[in-house]
Amino acid sequence: MKTKLFLSIALAAISLTAFAQQALFDKNEIVSPQINADNTVTFRLKAPKAVQVKITGDFLPTVKQQTNFGLIDAPGAADLKEVDGVWTWTSDKLSPELYSYKFIVDGMDMLDPSNIYRNRDIASFTNIFIIKGNGDDKGTYYSVNDVPHGTLAKVWYNSPTLKITRRMTVYTPAGYDNGKGKYPVLYLLHGAGGDENAWSELGRQTQILDNLIAEGKAKPMIVVMTNGNVTQKSAPGESDQGMYKPGFRGDGAEKAAASMDESFKDVVNYIDGHYRTLANKPNRAICGLSMGGGHSFAISKRYPDMFDYVGLFSAAIFMGGNQNGQQQTLEQQMKSSGADKQLATLFSKKPKLYWIGIGNSDFLYQTNADYRKYLDSKGYKYEYMETDGGHIWRNWRIYLTTFSQKLFK
Amino acid sequence: MKTKLFLSIALAAISLTAFAQQALFDKNEIVSPQINADNTVTFRLKAPKAVQVKITGDFLPTVKQQTNFGLIDAPGAADLKEVDGVWTWTSDKLSPELYSYKFIVDGMDMLDPSNIYRNRDIASFTNIFIIKGNGDDKGTYYSVNDVPHGTLAKVWYNSPTLKITRRMTVYTPAGYDNGKGKYPVLYLLHGAGGDENAWSELGRQTQILDNLIAEGKAKPMIVVMTNGNVTQKSAPGESDQGMYKPGFRGDGAEKAAASMDESFKDVVNYIDGHYRTLANKPNRAICGLSMGGGHSFAISKRYPDMFDYVGLFSAAIFMGGNQNGQQQTLEQQMKSSGADKQLATLFSKKPKLYWIGIGNSDFLYQTNADYRKYLDSKGYKYEYMETDGGHIWRNWRIYLTTFSQKLFK
Repeated sequence: MKTKLFLSIALAAISLTAFAQQALFDKNEIVSPQINADNTVTFRLKAPKAVQVKITGDFLPTVKQQTNFGLIDAPGAADLKEVDGVWTWTSDKLSPELYSYKFIVDGMDMLDPSNIYRNRDIASFTNIFIIKGNGDDKGTYYSVNDVPHGTLAKVWYNSPTLKITRRMTVYTPAGYDNGKGKYPVLYLLHGAGGDENAWSELGRQTQILDNLIAEGKAKPMIVVMTNGNVTQKSAPGESDQGMYKPGFRGDGAEKAAASMDESFKDVVNYIDGHYRTLANKPNRAICGLSMGGGHSFAISKRYPDMFDYVGLFSAAIFMGGNQNGQQQTLEQQMKSSGADKQLATLFSKKPKLYWIGIGNSDFLYQTNADYRKYLDSKGYKYEYMETDGGHIWRNWRIYLTTFSQKLFK
Repeated sequence: MKTKLFLSIALAAISLTAFAQQALFDKNEIVSPQINADNTVTFRLKAPKAVQVKITGDFLPTVKQQTNFGLIDAPGAADLKEVDGVWTWTSDKLSPELYSYKFIVDGMDMLDPSNIYRNRDIASFTNIFIIKGNGDDKGTYYSVNDVPHGTLAKVWYNSPTLKITRRMTVYTPAGYDNGKGKYPVLYLLHGAGGDENAWSELGRQTQILDNLIAEGKAKPMIVVMTNGNVTQKSAPGESDQGMYKPGFRGDGAEKAAASMDESFKDVVNYIDGHYRTLANKPNRAICGLSMGGGHSFAISKRYPDMFDYVGLFSAAIFMGGNQNGQQQTLEQQMKSSGADKQLATLFSKKPKLYWIGIGNSDFLYQTNADYRKYLDSKGYKYEYMETDGGHIWRNWRIYLTTFSQKLFK
């Protein structure tokens, strides 16, 4: 009966063409991307009237591009070939990883209409796909596997310091909803242009933690993903600030009631007040990427008794600051800002882990090298990871996978 | 210091062109859609090489289109005009509503790259925007306003009946996280091709309930949005069933361990076991659209002591069924399936509300008219709402807004 019922709906709807009713039927029968048995990937686009179709993606050989910062790696492009109006291109064999791409049709960026998986990074979208390996690889860790899953919630909390009610994303691990135990907490911060959705969407936080916890490689933990723009209530479109077009922005501290580090106590108070947390230093970690690395740097030194684990991913700390028109060295800035003394206090309390990760072609590489030199000069202990590539999510997913396995042990 | 810090990042990144770093800067300075003061809307697309650019959307005058089911309303299209490579078109004044649209560039569907707000319906995307009115209007109810917000969570639960662990979306109203009170529950079901994300994304469930509850027009309630495809663990890409391309599908009952109605007790048990619910008939409601209307029909009659409120939105119930090759009337099907007796039991227990809503050009209109005739013939009481238009989300948002205000009072 059921079968007949829905077959009837299908047959009824197939001849309808109204806008919404149309969604019941997919007129686009192209398969793209098609992951082949040998891990090459075939891309297809139906575009009978196009003159030129290219693909650009992070699986293509990079090209060196001259910038103010010297040569950097930019993603290459490849030409699709057309037969009967369908343009096709097949990649080399790809290693396990999450990849991003888009088409360029007669000079205009266009997503792959056959691929519903898309990530937004500020105001740009790219399609994504994942190549999985045989288990212990990035593709597998970034995929949803047949393991117990945590709960991901969009939660509103009041920030008395910022004087606004704000949104954050809270991951509670598998078992939390069915138990009574208390859990450690990782605070995971995004970069400039991002929001409280960035880590769970672009960063695959939920998949990475579900998988690592299931394998016993990471401790079950709560993960709190805040919005690091202190004038912003939520991701674009999710608050009464409206459906505006996001752009690059810093945290907005200059216009806000307080800075991210000053207001961060509100977040920790809310989480400790509403979740079953182990509410002490050995059971709290903080890390973030880029601006969020800068925030993690600032928050950890502001509250030296709060976190035993600190992670700076491609962190934006003290870049090109100047005083009275004079360019300052990082060491000068550490002193003039008071960070010098705060870090002395932080490290005197012996955090269990101070961790730094950066890509070897990141535009913040030199700043981070200067900061490591400073830490070395003071004898402050830290762990360091250097990866290939620049200021990109591919690296930040690696850093989360690595850092989260070191926590609360 | 903060300002300088992030300005520096901005200046540093502006000259970089690597794929991900590039997302920091939006090269596309076009504003689209631009909602003008008089509620006309201007759309723009930069496409210097395009020969023809059209827009299609549900704000355009519909055109009559001949189908097997007679004339139906299909969305019209309008031509954009090009100046210096930028194509432009301005709509008439629009009344408060959530609107959908896309461009057609040289015959190929394309989203508006300047508008990050997009809804997926099965495998198709459209851009969306909202025209707000002065308060008591659809545009306002579908917007995020400055009111207390509920929490939206993606939750995994075990279904012993279906023998799989599955994902659902659970809305807990503002105040739930800070209180100890118990709440009534609305179970809100999607249609064929949809999943547990459909109502919160396409249906604006979170905004509608936040707003109605804030105004005291709806009671604070938990809203549970299940996945109605009984072979599916979750929305596409969110389970180990992989990142496949979704298509039209029914609930898959013919291949599953059990039907949606048989397995629905697992959902109710989980919710009553994990949330502070008022776990009785006067405090439970169920409604759904299309296939989910069929499910609401089936579940409510299967468990006549479970729900005091039932809503059928453009419901797919008993369409064109046949036995031994003979087309059956709805009344014949009611008898041969046993629904006749189940409904007699259901209505003997006097549900507080049995509610039916449908559009006057819905392809399921006649089936629903037959069903109402059947209910009338039995003297079963129901409320009925008829709206303009077809089998579309615009109607389902109206029905949720209307139905949810009638519950638990």
